[in-house]
Amino acid sequence: MSYNLLKGKKGIVFGALNEMSIAWKVAELAVEQGAEIVLTNTPVSIRMGDIDQLAEKCNAHVVPADATNVEDLENLFTKSMELLGGKVDFVLHSIGMAPNVRKGNSYDNLNYEYLKKTLDVSAISFHKVLQAAKKLDAINEWGSVVALTYVAAQKTMYEYNDMADAKAMLESITRSFGYIYGREKRVRINTISQSPTVTTAGSGVKGFDKLIDFSERMSPLGNADATECAEYCITLFSDLTKKVTMQNLFHDGGFSSMGMSYRAMRQYNKSFSEE
Amino acid sequence: MSYNLLKGKKGIVFGALNEMSIAWKVAELAVEQGAEIVLTNTPVSIRMGDIDQLAEKCNAHVVPADATNVEDLENLFTKSMELLGGKVDFVLHSIGMAPNVRKGNSYDNLNYEYLKKTLDVSAISFHKVLQAAKKLDAINEWGSVVALTYVAAQKTMYEYNDMADAKAMLESITRSFGYIYGREKRVRINTISQSPTVTTAGSGVKGFDKLIDFSERMSPLGNADATECAEYCITLFSDLTKKVTMQNLFHDGGFSSMGMSYRAMRQYNKSFSEE
Amino acid sequence: MSYNLLKGKKGIVFGALNEMSIAWKVAELAVEQGAEIVLTNTPVSIRMGDIDQLAEKCNAHVVPADATNVEDLENLFTKSMELLGGKVDFVLHSIGMAPNVRKGNSYDNLNYEYLKKTLDVSAISFHKVLQAAKKLDAINEWGSVVALTYVAAQKTMYEYNDMADAKAMLESITRSFGYIYGREKRVRINTISQSPTVTTAGSGVKGFDKLIDFSERMSPLGNADATECAEYCITLFSDLTKKVTMQNLFHDGGFSSMGMSYRAMRQYNKSFSEE
Amino acid sequence: MSYNLLKGKKGIVFGALNEMSIAWKVAELAVEQGAEIVLTNTPVSIRMGDIDQLAEKCNAHVVPADATNVEDLENLFTKSMELLGGKVDFVLHSIGMAPNVRKGNSYDNLNYEYLKKTLDVSAISFHKVLQAAKKLDAINEWGSVVALTYVAAQKTMYEYNDMADAKAMLESITRSFGYIYGREKRVRINTISQSPTVTTAGSGVKGFDKLIDFSERMSPLGNADATECAEYCITLFSDLTKKVTMQNLFHDGGFSSMGMSYRAMRQYNKSFSEE
Repeated sequence: MSYNLLKGKKGIVFGALNEMSIAWKVAELAVEQGAEIVLTNTPVSIRMGDIDQLAEKCNAHVVPADATNVEDLENLFTKSMELLGGKVDFVLHSIGMAPNVRKGNSYDNLNYEYLKKTLDVSAISFHKVLQAAKKLDAINEWGSVVALTYVAAQKTMYEYNDMADAKAMLESITRSFGYIYGREKRVRINTISQSPTVTTAGSGVKGFDKLIDFSERMSPLGNADATECAEYCITLFSDLTKKVTMQNLFHDGGFSSMGMSYRAMRQYNKSFSEE
Repeated sequence: MSYNLLKGKKGIVFGALNEMSIAWKVAELAVEQGAEIVLTNTPVSIRMGDIDQLAEKCNAHVVPADATNVEDLENLFTKSMELLGGKVDFVLHSIGMAPNVRKGNSYDNLNYEYLKKTLDVSAISFHKVLQAAKKLDAINEWGSVVALTYVAAQKTMYEYNDMADAKAMLESITRSFGYIYGREKRVRINTISQSPTVTTAGSGVKGFDKLIDFSERMSPLGNADATECAEYCITLFSDLTKKVTMQNLFHDGGFSSMGMSYRAMRQYNKSFSEE
Repeated sequence: MSYNLLKGKKGIVFGALNEMSIAWKVAELAVEQGAEIVLTNTPVSIRMGDIDQLAEKCNAHVVPADATNVEDLENLFTKSMELLGGKVDFVLHSIGMAPNVRKGNSYDNLNYEYLKKTLDVSAISFHKVLQAAKKLDAINEWGSVVALTYVAAQKTMYEYNDMADAKAMLESITRSFGYIYGREKRVRINTISQSPTVTTAGSGVKGFDKLIDFSERMSPLGNADATECAEYCITLFSDLTKKVTMQNLFHDGGFSSMGMSYRAMRQYNKSFSEE
Repeated sequence: MSYNLLKGKKGIVFGALNEMSIAWKVAELAVEQGAEIVLTNTPVSIRMGDIDQLAEKCNAHVVPADATNVEDLENLFTKSMELLGGKVDFVLHSIGMAPNVRKGNSYDNLNYEYLKKTLDVSAISFHKVLQAAKKLDAINEWGSVVALTYVAAQKTMYEYNDMADAKAMLESITRSFGYIYGREKRVRINTISQSPTVTTAGSGVKGFDKLIDFSERMSPLGNADATECAEYCITLFSDLTKKVTMQNLFHDGGFSSMGMSYRAMRQYNKSFSEE
């Protein structure tokens, strides 16, 4: 349902690969709520994914950019301001890569070149996005930037590996840059810490289906899905949340505040029935 | 501006005293966004304040209730469902009282009867509201309940006294009941931790103006005011935040994530100029 | 092994019932480390439990006191200073009671008189202990006070009920009073958040054995037991931790920092084997 | 005073430069408490600093190692086990470097090569230390590893710059590796979040003296100094804290739990006297 909550707003959405992507849902919903957007991703992801479909649906332009490359980012913001006819009001950062996870390197056997890649793509890219935007003065006053993160930044989840450290750094960048960008340009920066979500990225983690089951039973409202995450993003891009900044906001059906639920414990207890 | 974000929703707003009250702004804004509401407060506050004006403006009924009294609360929910023609979708709890603060009792010289009063009015009342609502099944599935709190629950603020303990308990009730109400009825429960706000309640705290100055300089976006708080409440009552529950959400211009800002430190440093 | 870590120190230990009690272990270990102590508990607990045995073993006096009663507490501190020949250096608060849990009232069906009892015994008693001690100037400079708490104060554990709210308040009192007592008398105040422990108190919670199993498998170092908790208390009473105050310190084998462990997940997954 | 708290234990201390260093104090105190240690630092720091004096005083060997270099670290652990005649029981990581701070690059104008250096030296080095130790099985069961951090990882402190992000990552590594090393070898890993301390490293930060003044007035017990930090480290290396792991432990006189103190506010208010 459209409330025109983002009427007249312009935005840039990073990280839409295919229709399972959270970024995909954010793009769709932002446009539905009245926004005009530019979509971006790496050239490789653009080839592999279906972003052109999305662009058509959203009446949006696609500007390729590698978010670890400062020049690409400066080009992206410059082009976006041209295409959108002015500065942007919101940015979504939904970017991550974990070569150590993909290669099956356990956390006590990290390849440090891969770790650097993980940090560069999943965390430092966010700083580069913000620094490029600020240098070009590309975000309007009271603009809103959101990055996606996961509770493993606070609570260790086995198999999440060095991605946990990257997310912890991402959340720190959110605070550090949130302070600077807030005091100087009134731009707010937050992360949404989302339930484990069945996306192309998420599904690479081993044992992911069982983790999702556990998370579902632990969360009083159940896991949040990609569409619900997009809805929450929209509220953060809107003018109704202007004084929320430097926060990590859990969007997870309550998981982050649970120690143990009856439903999860009942399931857990079944495991003993045959012993 | 109306987005009709609460179109068709029904709500109960506790704690509107006069137009400085956050609850007052929430009531106004909720109605502006399409909601129908019932206003409530204690008989004393109703006499002392201007709630009838607000009721008229909002086309709302006033149902008196002492939130520490279970019967009053049951009557409130029953009446509200009659007046609104069905279950409610949202509730705002903006209630507090601190007789030890008012009487100038320092925290190491508490009157324990006053402490009980503080807890009863400022924290336990929230449990009573929720328990009464649940017993009467007075809140629709995916309904939303918000209570207002303050960062002193986490970080000690001198002069905030036993109210800090009451707020810590309030936030715990939010989690504890959020689990139960979420798993059984899909109702979400959150607190908003708001900047120090110039209201009739807030202005009772000693040295409050200087604290507000410090808070303003510490917060990259400045303090959040009552209207902005109301706007944030609206997003939490809307259908766009369905999976946010059991959270304490800071709405404070970034204060809660600051250790020291340049602006506050520059001011602080001036204090040494004459020494 | 004795390091004489508390040589020459005097302390008061609340809450030793029988040899399963954490307070029992703290008393034994404190004396082993060179301290002189006074034991205290309610008259009922003294009759029901084995504190006289402990007193003999520890060469300690027993001074009965109901920790919800200010006069009793003032008498306790006065007597203790007489018996020990001076002010005390450390205090352990290990006190809790949850009549709603005992009576099987679920959290959405609380008896509010019982809730008041829960708060009075489990949280407010800590404030009363501190206020009485400060009024009588009964704690030496750089003294140390510790209260025991549980992670349910932060993360909801089903069946822990209103005790979670009491513990949240207890931890807030620790901060609030830690500020006052620290600035004025250099006394530090902390809580230890301990693993679920098989004590007479703990074992009353329904499904407690399975919760302990889950907690054990989640914690990389396994659950902490009562003796280990006592060892940790000793370090906090010693002169080696003088600048630690207003903290909630997890002593739980890592549980509080875990989202999901391999061991717990492997067990959880077994539950699906027959379905 | 020696309690022989580390009698028979062997350890490695990273980061002692001169007698202002926290690591220096830790080395002295560990030996005083009965430990045998190996000192290490980069070749450059060894030349610039006074570590040989410390080695003599502590009857310790110095093994040079660049903590960003895996081979150096493997050599360090191998040599240390030879020199100490067995596996080690504790490790202190007190390592940091912030070229962006040193060069005066503000946080919105970071040099990304410098950022990588900051992360490599201040955070990833900790992972390398742990991974090297685990591969060589160089730490005894129930061994203890501590790294030093600062509250800026949670709360933004102006001028602390990208070091905040490095510290956030360091604390995440502590949790992530604490899980793995705990479950497999019973090794515990924690960070101590220390007051701002006048060391050669700390004094490089602009406006550091005024920040220390503010911190002193905010902390009910005042700032913790380097010797007190060393004392706290000793408790974490001892056998009395075996079940504490994956924690960030504030050692700061209460600063981290304060929102505003009377003393700091009184000073702040003086700043308005001339206006």
